[in-house]
Amino acid sequence: MVEMEKLQKQGVLLRITATALLILTLLLVRFNTQTKVLFLTLVKKATYRDLDPLFVLVWVDLAAAAYNVVHVLICFFFPIKEELGTIYRSLAWASYLVDQGVVYLVFAANSAATEASLLAVKGSNSFQWMKVCNRFTRFCYQVGGALFCGLLASIVLALVSSLSAYRLFRLYSTKQFLLLKKK
Amino acid sequence: MVEMEKLQKQGVLLRITATALLILTLLLVRFNTQTKVLFLTLVKKATYRDLDPLFVLVWVDLAAAAYNVVHVLICFFFPIKEELGTIYRSLAWASYLVDQGVVYLVFAANSAATEASLLAVKGSNSFQWMKVCNRFTRFCYQVGGALFCGLLASIVLALVSSLSAYRLFRLYSTKQFLLLKKK
Repeated sequence: MVEMEKLQKQGVLLRITATALLILTLLLVRFNTQTKVLFLTLVKKATYRDLDPLFVLVWVDLAAAAYNVVHVLICFFFPIKEELGTIYRSLAWASYLVDQGVVYLVFAANSAATEASLLAVKGSNSFQWMKVCNRFTRFCYQVGGALFCGLLASIVLALVSSLSAYRLFRLYSTKQFLLLKKK
Repeated sequence: MVEMEKLQKQGVLLRITATALLILTLLLVRFNTQTKVLFLTLVKKATYRDLDPLFVLVWVDLAAAAYNVVHVLICFFFPIKEELGTIYRSLAWASYLVDQGVVYLVFAANSAATEASLLAVKGSNSFQWMKVCNRFTRFCYQVGGALFCGLLASIVLALVSSLSAYRLFRLYSTKQFLLLKKK
């Protein structure tokens, strides 16, 4: 049982790391602006609102960070012991399913933002879309850094979700599908 | 044990479904073309090569489909019995890790292609990127259908990867971390 508590502590540490990375990503994207004089008095300000997927990424990361904080607080203030049986199992299932949803959501938002940013870096010849990053270089580097943090956050969340899977599925028997193991 | 063989059969069925959806996606994207006269003699042909993420999606889906076919063939011709212990466990770990990698890769490729296609549908005011889909309507509808199949394939692959997690982690004890369960 001591071993299992250590495991739970490591899960909490992973969740805190993921939350920190998610918040770092969203702050880097949210407060990223660059103002440039394009032509005489024509001034253009680049913000995260210029590209929809960056806007979506900020909200998805915020939601994922909030979920992980709530999860850690619940683990801390209302620890559910394994001896509770059905309640423990229901919570393990809920935690596994929500964790899976969160990791796929964050991963999708990050991939979409990365793809849109790549288009901003390279433009598209066939569509006659101009490059944007040759004018807003600092802005683009900061987005790049944020997306890298987002990728790290996704990897940590994938680990968290594997740990949830482990905590859930080890409860079941090796002999029959979804039959509980004897103590 | 009979129950477990049924589970294995369901895993194989899921993998075949995923493979079919992946191949459908890649065929829909790969053989999608539309030719349009833009202005007098200026003819433009839209193909999947016009948008990098569609090109990447075709190759990622091909690789994922090939992996799943190989996995099913191995399960069919060289079934590994659980009694083999270490070999069974190593294979279960390998299968779990590769399945996780494949589902994240397919999911990322699909999200990136979806984001790029959304940009082609809506254009971007701030970047002065033109809409493309008002000219190549049929082409865009077909890409939309392909991306929907790709999303279904991702969901089936996520189920496959959950099943791999279940088959692996049920082998372990509830008491100590990564300690094998007694028979």
